[in-house]
Amino acid sequence: MAEDNSVFIGNKPFMNYVTGVVMQFTTKNAESVVVKARGKFISRAVDVAEVASKRFLDNTVGIRDINIDSEEFENKEGKQVRVSTIEITLGKK
Amino acid sequence: MAEDNSVFIGNKPFMNYVTGVVMQFTTKNAESVVVKARGKFISRAVDVAEVASKRFLDNTVGIRDINIDSEEFENKEGKQVRVSTIEITLGKK
Repeated sequence: MAEDNSVFIGNKPFMNYVTGVVMQFTTKNAESVVVKARGKFISRAVDVAEVASKRFLDNTVGIRDINIDSEEFENKEGKQVRVSTIEITLGKK
Repeated sequence: MAEDNSVFIGNKPFMNYVTGVVMQFTTKNAESVVVKARGKFISRAVDVAEVASKRFLDNTVGIRDINIDSEEFENKEGKQVRVSTIEITLGKK
């Protein structure tokens, strides 16, 4: 899968992300789309994946894979911080 | 798998949940534990699963399965509301 159809979830309006995912499948004819998020945006990524696949793309797109992981980085105070990440792969059925 | 080793994530202190998961594997010798959450607590469920498996139980427990779904219910105003859910299954390697 060389194509990179990723949608990274942040604090823009919720429907921007849903529309982004839906349009990848419809106008760009993507075979799969990966919804990615870190930290507190993980809940939102799940909402985006659920609303896009069930309310807007029902019967054509489903959850294909979900991965969670941790990233370590150094914050401004030089302290080591851990943050969780999620990648939800949606794919045409 | 008849055993029900579920930990439902809410707004208690974070480490309560991590300890709960870790103790299921250690003192109760569980073979698997399911971390469950709804709505905004989904991010927290991912944190609990990551910290418990990687920081406290490293090399013995890993992520076995992740499922997301939606629940519909009627709120106090009689309006139909959708909420996302997650179930993260941790298992002994």
